[in-house]
Amino acid sequence: MTVKTPITIAYGDGIGPEIMKATLNILNAAHAPIDPEVIEVGEKIYLQGYSSGIPDSAWESLKRTKILLKGPITTPQGGGYKSLNVTLRKTLSLFANVRPCVSLYPYIATKHPQMDLVIIRENEEGTYAGIEHRQTDEVYQCLKLVTRPGCERIVHYAFEYARKFNRKKVTCLTKDNIMKMTDGIFHQVFNEIATQYPDIQTEHFIIDIGTALVAAQPERFDVIVTSNLYGDIISDVAAQVAGSVGLAGSANVGNHMAMFEAIHGSAPDIADKKIANPSGILNAAIQMLIHINQPETATLIENAWLKTIEDGIHTADIYNSEHSKKKANTDEFASAVIDRLGQQPSHFKPVDYKQNVRAKIECYGEKKRVIANKQLVGVDIFIENLHLTAEELGKKLATLNTSLKLIVITSRGLKIWPNSMIDTPYAHHCSCRFQSSTDLNHLPSITHQDILNLLKEFDNAEFDVIKTENLYTFDEKLGFTLAQGQ
Amino acid sequence: MTVKTPITIAYGDGIGPEIMKATLNILNAAHAPIDPEVIEVGEKIYLQGYSSGIPDSAWESLKRTKILLKGPITTPQGGGYKSLNVTLRKTLSLFANVRPCVSLYPYIATKHPQMDLVIIRENEEGTYAGIEHRQTDEVYQCLKLVTRPGCERIVHYAFEYARKFNRKKVTCLTKDNIMKMTDGIFHQVFNEIATQYPDIQTEHFIIDIGTALVAAQPERFDVIVTSNLYGDIISDVAAQVAGSVGLAGSANVGNHMAMFEAIHGSAPDIADKKIANPSGILNAAIQMLIHINQPETATLIENAWLKTIEDGIHTADIYNSEHSKKKANTDEFASAVIDRLGQQPSHFKPVDYKQNVRAKIECYGEKKRVIANKQLVGVDIFIENLHLTAEELGKKLATLNTSLKLIVITSRGLKIWPNSMIDTPYAHHCSCRFQSSTDLNHLPSITHQDILNLLKEFDNAEFDVIKTENLYTFDEKLGFTLAQGQ
Repeated sequence: MTVKTPITIAYGDGIGPEIMKATLNILNAAHAPIDPEVIEVGEKIYLQGYSSGIPDSAWESLKRTKILLKGPITTPQGGGYKSLNVTLRKTLSLFANVRPCVSLYPYIATKHPQMDLVIIRENEEGTYAGIEHRQTDEVYQCLKLVTRPGCERIVHYAFEYARKFNRKKVTCLTKDNIMKMTDGIFHQVFNEIATQYPDIQTEHFIIDIGTALVAAQPERFDVIVTSNLYGDIISDVAAQVAGSVGLAGSANVGNHMAMFEAIHGSAPDIADKKIANPSGILNAAIQMLIHINQPETATLIENAWLKTIEDGIHTADIYNSEHSKKKANTDEFASAVIDRLGQQPSHFKPVDYKQNVRAKIECYGEKKRVIANKQLVGVDIFIENLHLTAEELGKKLATLNTSLKLIVITSRGLKIWPNSMIDTPYAHHCSCRFQSSTDLNHLPSITHQDILNLLKEFDNAEFDVIKTENLYTFDEKLGFTLAQGQ
Repeated sequence: MTVKTPITIAYGDGIGPEIMKATLNILNAAHAPIDPEVIEVGEKIYLQGYSSGIPDSAWESLKRTKILLKGPITTPQGGGYKSLNVTLRKTLSLFANVRPCVSLYPYIATKHPQMDLVIIRENEEGTYAGIEHRQTDEVYQCLKLVTRPGCERIVHYAFEYARKFNRKKVTCLTKDNIMKMTDGIFHQVFNEIATQYPDIQTEHFIIDIGTALVAAQPERFDVIVTSNLYGDIISDVAAQVAGSVGLAGSANVGNHMAMFEAIHGSAPDIADKKIANPSGILNAAIQMLIHINQPETATLIENAWLKTIEDGIHTADIYNSEHSKKKANTDEFASAVIDRLGQQPSHFKPVDYKQNVRAKIECYGEKKRVIANKQLVGVDIFIENLHLTAEELGKKLATLNTSLKLIVITSRGLKIWPNSMIDTPYAHHCSCRFQSSTDLNHLPSITHQDILNLLKEFDNAEFDVIKTENLYTFDEKLGFTLAQGQ
């Protein structure tokens, strides 16, 4: 007897229960060797007072099975409810979001019949960490944090995925012409890891041009790897131009766990009517079967699904007079897929997944690198300054008793002192940069105590300090950008 | 005799000189009452050692005329050269980037014949301020700064633009479901200012869905207002799906100055061949004429240009067998436009610009608001931590001598102490949150000295502090986000 793989199932909200039920019926009929255990997450749980939408008992199941097939969730409006998806991704360290996006032309309307790409998006970093501070009456800040291990993990994953799924090219998208450090490290890591995959073509685009190309010429892409925000945006663009928003599944994959879901929402307006299309969660389940190394069942189901689409058995959302032969409800669509188990599509190319194509990254974190020599060489002290002009501010700062040198005052990254070209710069929120020396090529180290002494001077002079950013060199290279205009 | 308006002209690099010359020929032939003075910016100036690409003498001209018509620039590769565009935008406070994007179907291939939208992008804020710090061997940070005045200015501009150019709807795009403060303030300001324009329809989309709609259904948009990065991305998407990358102009507008340019680059590969299409810089010049209140000349030229396109006089970049009648070089194209001055297009709707349609915002900065009561209530102290587990870290921090309460330790925004759900969280880069009390509804004020004392304790305990973020309440509302999982 086949050993069944335990998986955790969450039906979700809105149309979730009906499409999940239809999907499980198909998995059953295909004799998928799985052993589902059901957890409750989402709206009901939120309203019971769990602000994250998931009760403690559900975590137990996840830690046991390490696999979640999840229906769409309704997050209640207002009042401190946190996105369950973000919580699951971060808590389970599901660093990779994987979104295949393929044209089903002519059955599904699209202007891009040849489109067949996969977006691999970093899931844990960047501005989506949600670290925000209101610093003055007027100024709000969000931190964008990018780590080298985070970049290595996702880029490595993308190349492994490309190799195992027989993809030919990986495209990297960043904005490193503007964000030279945070996006620069992503691009640099991409270039480094690419050398380990000489069989895979590589390219890089700036995100604005890259997104435009995904919109206008998606057929030119194969695998795309990018960071969190950019990946979020291009995933929606790609799904929209493929016409596949209602049909696509996605995977969120970590080193130890993985979650699979439809990319669409819970559509409460059509809930309980049994007319929803189960394809999104079904395609997520197919990704899951590949992931738990049941490629034969995945192949069986995906081919039957493609045949159903070809045969014109369509739910209302994709029904069209030209290619549809029968308008099916949720259960009828699922039955049509079940009836076709074992059949092959004729218009679409049949799929044939292989054993062990899961893009598992086992080497992450083990790589030894030489750690750069980090030296503390200065500090940016941010202040709220409601009354002084940039010139007055420069003068007052020059009177502070410190061994550190005042280099530049900036506002929103732009130099406003000394020698500003600007007549009346915005000076309510300023960063005052102090360094151990004025010579960027020779910056001796300072101590934390030097910074504390300077902060004490700021306090005595009644400056309203709102934050600090230390300045470092790494192997004598600057670990900070210069001001615009500096 | 008509008084001529002084304007500053920069020919730029690559194809810049030839397309600018062609454009000036058209402006001359149309008797545009302008008095151009030429400055030199770009490649040559960079290579003379001006890292910003603009010499001091050029600034003089700009400050005098307050108007710049600029050809495309080549920024030399490598070595500290700064984007001239970013420098001009920030130094001249050109806060609004205005990009009309219109279909020229069927003469220019596009899948969206009805497309006619304008993107108004905030130009000075967000992550594009380029404030970046490398904080540890592994971790890089970029600050995203958003100010209420910055949001007010751009949103106000968008509504004024809509009203003056007879547009019916303004769409706002943000990601405020994730970035509740920085994107939240943009959306909130949009809602506030919208109430002053009851004649204009409004809507809001999350940026990922919004970008997908710009890609797939651009005809549904009219005026779009959004922040810097998002605007950069959707501008390229819109130009690409309209097919207008080679044809469109854009304006960068401030309260005192404005700059007009083509959206394409300097195309050095076809420079000096006199085959480049001058339409991009010509359309920028048309925007300039409207801005300097010469709408009659703008109307005259744009109608002649539309007629030229209709008549199938096409440069090589847009030449196609179906709709082109003559392949023109740069000068022939310009001559064809000149020949048609006074004519009206028949397929396209003729334009008819009115006096004073410049979307000038004179009230910015004058608005009085009640300033919220800001209270310092705690601090996030970020440290590099190479050796301690989250548990050990929590224990060690608890031994510090401070009146402040340790609330939570986070890593990349995720709670890792206390009671983390995660087995082995990333703990090399941690934020340690201290507050005046554990009760978020009752946070007494603290002083800067309290923070200095705590930092002194960190230093004594040999913690490697890398930065701080103060925690405030504003009118007793929290000025900071909670950790994911908190």
